[in-house]
Amino acid sequence: MNDIYIAPSILSADFAKLGEEVVEVERSGADWLHVDVMDGHFVPNITFGAAVMGAIAPLTKLPLDVHLMIENPEQYIPAFAQAGAHLITVHQEACIHLHRVVHLIKEHGVKAGVAINPATPVSAIREVLEDVDLVLVMTVNPGFGGQAFIPSTLRKIKELKELREELGLKQLRIEVDGGISAATAPLVVEAGADVLVAGNAVFGRSDRSEAIQEIRSSLQ
Amino acid sequence: MNDIYIAPSILSADFAKLGEEVVEVERSGADWLHVDVMDGHFVPNITFGAAVMGAIAPLTKLPLDVHLMIENPEQYIPAFAQAGAHLITVHQEACIHLHRVVHLIKEHGVKAGVAINPATPVSAIREVLEDVDLVLVMTVNPGFGGQAFIPSTLRKIKELKELREELGLKQLRIEVDGGISAATAPLVVEAGADVLVAGNAVFGRSDRSEAIQEIRSSLQ
Amino acid sequence: MNDIYIAPSILSADFAKLGEEVVEVERSGADWLHVDVMDGHFVPNITFGAAVMGAIAPLTKLPLDVHLMIENPEQYIPAFAQAGAHLITVHQEACIHLHRVVHLIKEHGVKAGVAINPATPVSAIREVLEDVDLVLVMTVNPGFGGQAFIPSTLRKIKELKELREELGLKQLRIEVDGGISAATAPLVVEAGADVLVAGNAVFGRSDRSEAIQEIRSSLQ
Amino acid sequence: MNDIYIAPSILSADFAKLGEEVVEVERSGADWLHVDVMDGHFVPNITFGAAVMGAIAPLTKLPLDVHLMIENPEQYIPAFAQAGAHLITVHQEACIHLHRVVHLIKEHGVKAGVAINPATPVSAIREVLEDVDLVLVMTVNPGFGGQAFIPSTLRKIKELKELREELGLKQLRIEVDGGISAATAPLVVEAGADVLVAGNAVFGRSDRSEAIQEIRSSLQ
Amino acid sequence: MNDIYIAPSILSADFAKLGEEVVEVERSGADWLHVDVMDGHFVPNITFGAAVMGAIAPLTKLPLDVHLMIENPEQYIPAFAQAGAHLITVHQEACIHLHRVVHLIKEHGVKAGVAINPATPVSAIREVLEDVDLVLVMTVNPGFGGQAFIPSTLRKIKELKELREELGLKQLRIEVDGGISAATAPLVVEAGADVLVAGNAVFGRSDRSEAIQEIRSSLQ
Amino acid sequence: MNDIYIAPSILSADFAKLGEEVVEVERSGADWLHVDVMDGHFVPNITFGAAVMGAIAPLTKLPLDVHLMIENPEQYIPAFAQAGAHLITVHQEACIHLHRVVHLIKEHGVKAGVAINPATPVSAIREVLEDVDLVLVMTVNPGFGGQAFIPSTLRKIKELKELREELGLKQLRIEVDGGISAATAPLVVEAGADVLVAGNAVFGRSDRSEAIQEIRSSLQ
Repeated sequence: MNDIYIAPSILSADFAKLGEEVVEVERSGADWLHVDVMDGHFVPNITFGAAVMGAIAPLTKLPLDVHLMIENPEQYIPAFAQAGAHLITVHQEACIHLHRVVHLIKEHGVKAGVAINPATPVSAIREVLEDVDLVLVMTVNPGFGGQAFIPSTLRKIKELKELREELGLKQLRIEVDGGISAATAPLVVEAGADVLVAGNAVFGRSDRSEAIQEIRSSLQ
Repeated sequence: MNDIYIAPSILSADFAKLGEEVVEVERSGADWLHVDVMDGHFVPNITFGAAVMGAIAPLTKLPLDVHLMIENPEQYIPAFAQAGAHLITVHQEACIHLHRVVHLIKEHGVKAGVAINPATPVSAIREVLEDVDLVLVMTVNPGFGGQAFIPSTLRKIKELKELREELGLKQLRIEVDGGISAATAPLVVEAGADVLVAGNAVFGRSDRSEAIQEIRSSLQ
Repeated sequence: MNDIYIAPSILSADFAKLGEEVVEVERSGADWLHVDVMDGHFVPNITFGAAVMGAIAPLTKLPLDVHLMIENPEQYIPAFAQAGAHLITVHQEACIHLHRVVHLIKEHGVKAGVAINPATPVSAIREVLEDVDLVLVMTVNPGFGGQAFIPSTLRKIKELKELREELGLKQLRIEVDGGISAATAPLVVEAGADVLVAGNAVFGRSDRSEAIQEIRSSLQ
Repeated sequence: MNDIYIAPSILSADFAKLGEEVVEVERSGADWLHVDVMDGHFVPNITFGAAVMGAIAPLTKLPLDVHLMIENPEQYIPAFAQAGAHLITVHQEACIHLHRVVHLIKEHGVKAGVAINPATPVSAIREVLEDVDLVLVMTVNPGFGGQAFIPSTLRKIKELKELREELGLKQLRIEVDGGISAATAPLVVEAGADVLVAGNAVFGRSDRSEAIQEIRSSLQ
Repeated sequence: MNDIYIAPSILSADFAKLGEEVVEVERSGADWLHVDVMDGHFVPNITFGAAVMGAIAPLTKLPLDVHLMIENPEQYIPAFAQAGAHLITVHQEACIHLHRVVHLIKEHGVKAGVAINPATPVSAIREVLEDVDLVLVMTVNPGFGGQAFIPSTLRKIKELKELREELGLKQLRIEVDGGISAATAPLVVEAGADVLVAGNAVFGRSDRSEAIQEIRSSLQ
Repeated sequence: MNDIYIAPSILSADFAKLGEEVVEVERSGADWLHVDVMDGHFVPNITFGAAVMGAIAPLTKLPLDVHLMIENPEQYIPAFAQAGAHLITVHQEACIHLHRVVHLIKEHGVKAGVAINPATPVSAIREVLEDVDLVLVMTVNPGFGGQAFIPSTLRKIKELKELREELGLKQLRIEVDGGISAATAPLVVEAGADVLVAGNAVFGRSDRSEAIQEIRSSLQ
């Protein structure tokens, strides 16, 4: 299963010892680190910004996968790029000028992703599929950790997988975020996902190595 | 000088080991812990929200002095109250219904403060002085750490001190935030301040105990 | 035609004697009562809120079919649920997190609908069709009573009817609102509508029983 | 006490029979009728708009005293003027161009008022005192009926009364809204108020004539 | 190629002598004059409004093709209609009530267009295609002159051309704006465009007649 | 009267030949050129932005006095500085962080002003008086040319003049804008103004030299 990436979300980590948490989760076999930025406007919760992320960047070699759940994301792309982002994902619902924002990310030397909420159809991002490195299909409504997976999102993952094949976009990754665990991972991977964000399923467990291993095993 | 409180701002701490930082700064003689919440809308920077603060609350006995530099603060008061706030301060410039917001804070069993930007006159908060426990006079423009103290704000601190005496509001504390160090602390304390937020002046030093001591000494 | 519901809109009633109007329209054979809530922001008109609706709820057994033409509808769903709503419909154009809002309605024990403006395509709500109890196809631009029916909306009604069959969503109702009368009712019903909002066509007539009967007859 | 006006607020009336309520309250000795318009944005509640007010205007000779607790009030002034307003009051906190809005009201042949929230100082409206017919001092935070009177607002009423004398603005009326009853009426009248909005204190009583009489008696 | 219109954009003209520029470009063979209105909110740039356009309207017989890159365009349609607009185009991304705005333009006796940003799919405007006179496919992200043509927009132009044929909308024009020159003109025309906005490619040249001729020649 | 500056506003010039107009008005004895930037959001009119101003900057030696009637002015300060502004004035009502915006202007090497609407009291800008080079007292409500002077604004001009003397701010200029002509100029100058914006009173006349001379003469 070497093509499937597991990206624990630091939203579920212990913020009092974030550095340690990051080091441990890297040692436990995580592939990416998912960074959930919320501004209390696009979603009804404030998490943290570029300075918090910048504090952990020097402590890990894991690619930092930044998910901006914020309005006017273009204003904060330079800060996250400088803080060490490997990939920055913005929401289709937050961008009037989505094509410009995607290319602004790339101009900062960072990979670009676009996210869609559960109610947003794939057709809303069709015109930027060739421009992005990743599509993030939200499998819960963004704003909080610990929510239950929404099964109807599987249809969109499949639709994206088929589009990816049809368009020959081999490099395009499909990420899922929300309610991912050993129980739901096989479903999303079969549908087409290849980057799995895991929050509580990893950080909510005392043995993160075992937790990550369980998700991987579920995919066999 | 036992009446002057020093409140290091975790905005300047190392977010990778926030728990340790908090424990150390408590041991170093801090009186309060200042928590700078920014949403990227009221100010052009996103810092962190209630979950980050909640992670450090169990690690310290220091009163958590929460400074909300956010729009619509009423939406987040319950979360910060529950996360362990001792005092929540909102900006006059962010509140159409300032009196309601102040009392909403108190209904959550938390002390209430009101903050004013450098350009905002004291008259803008005159009508809530009897309702709040603290006035925060910004001595820099909010949004970032490490800015230089604005001397003209001393006049407002004096004006508040005189109003406090005139109105017999003995319990009302006057807090200052921005550019406070051993060099500026005597000026603001003489003007009337009794809670000093210190960012880089404490967390920017390797020996925080010494740093806090220097500020205290400057006030002799 | 026992499957077609007629829902007079109280927007066209006499607000000075709303209770009487409601009682009379129930006696006249209405199936539902349509409640048009406008906030002057989503649409350029303010009508009324939950308190006005709550005043008539105890006077009728008709299901109250609440149509929220407001921004941030999630903030007012609890109030309308408590005021006696049978069904609450929100606009796709007003919801960044449409899936969350639909489920918030249901968590309050109320049926959930989603409305689309004349220019909004059916594809914009495809992902929530399985989650809602009703789709409201606006057949005029919302904001005022007494506007003329827009014929091109028939195509969307047909498209929804076909999707309903294709997806086996037998319980899903298709409602139309705007310019509905004995002249247009047969067209929308043939296209697939089964809940007809009628404003002036009912309340604009002195004999409401006759008015409702005419619409029903037009459908034979 | 013939100079003191009592203005029952229809916010506390029974919306199912608003016409009857209005007729009864006029017969009971009310001087004005207070009309609380809320949009769910300036305040966290939606009440009703110009159409509801227009329905009762023909039923009463009482002057309709419209209180716009809405954002962008300039957009709705024509509608309320046409619906029969005698006086339209806008909030200082809702108007960037307050002077223009006040004169826009007057250009529609309607008297103009300006309201201030409990936390807003009198100095914020000093520059339009000569332009308005009425100042409304909120004695609760606007948004809901049935709240408790805030005593510190008495100071602002006195300050306005003194300014009125100093400036020779004999025609300027001072209105108060929130928590007014036979218990608080003498306080506000002594401070300087001459228009008393009464909500529950009138409509919450079965005998409105007695209720109004009690308030008048309290002023002897 | 008599069916292809060339519409030089005054965004690239010399604003110090706009009248002269307009006269010259008319003499040079332009078919329409494209007027780029930006408000600094919908796009990150402010250009000019109806008064600037009104100053040049009397100087030319060229149809004025107004492109509103502004929020709340409905507020400014009357001003541009009165200033002499031949056609007014609004952005789909700026209109909650797109159908109403399109018909508001027509009610002012002006032809109506709808524009889509590079990331916006054709499906977003499908429901108003029968209502508009023109679709403007942005071939750069709006906000500035002098940007490079985005080739992936050709697919949308083709899709529109096919829809136009399928729906029999012979009068519907397809306009393109951004990066159009003798190099890109043949591509967009082959895809289906018939109105070409040209900025720098015309006004950036000293001989505008030659510049326009080169574009026309490229289409042979 | 050599200390009084006259600043014709290009809002009233002929935009078709703006360069000529500017050259002529300089030749006619103007001291500054006033540049009215409106975005259609802060005020209900869109005029022009930095590109239009940049086109005339090279044609005149007159200091360009830029008046930003726009929301979020901080976003456009760099563009106007680069386009040749001598002084940039922002509205107090448009700035949450007024002190920061004023200093941002200065960091761009441009003089800074602050404007207040007719209803805004002088106390609202008291805290930045030492930081600015100019205060602009609006003598009409901003948004349009050709409005009538509001006499009650004279009181604010006097208040500012007295504050200037009291604080020893000899360099601080007091500018007035709106309804200034030979009839009103003596009043505002006597009150304390020393920069007079003149719109129609200059550009509305065929002989601008005579028009400016008349205003100067009125001040003798």
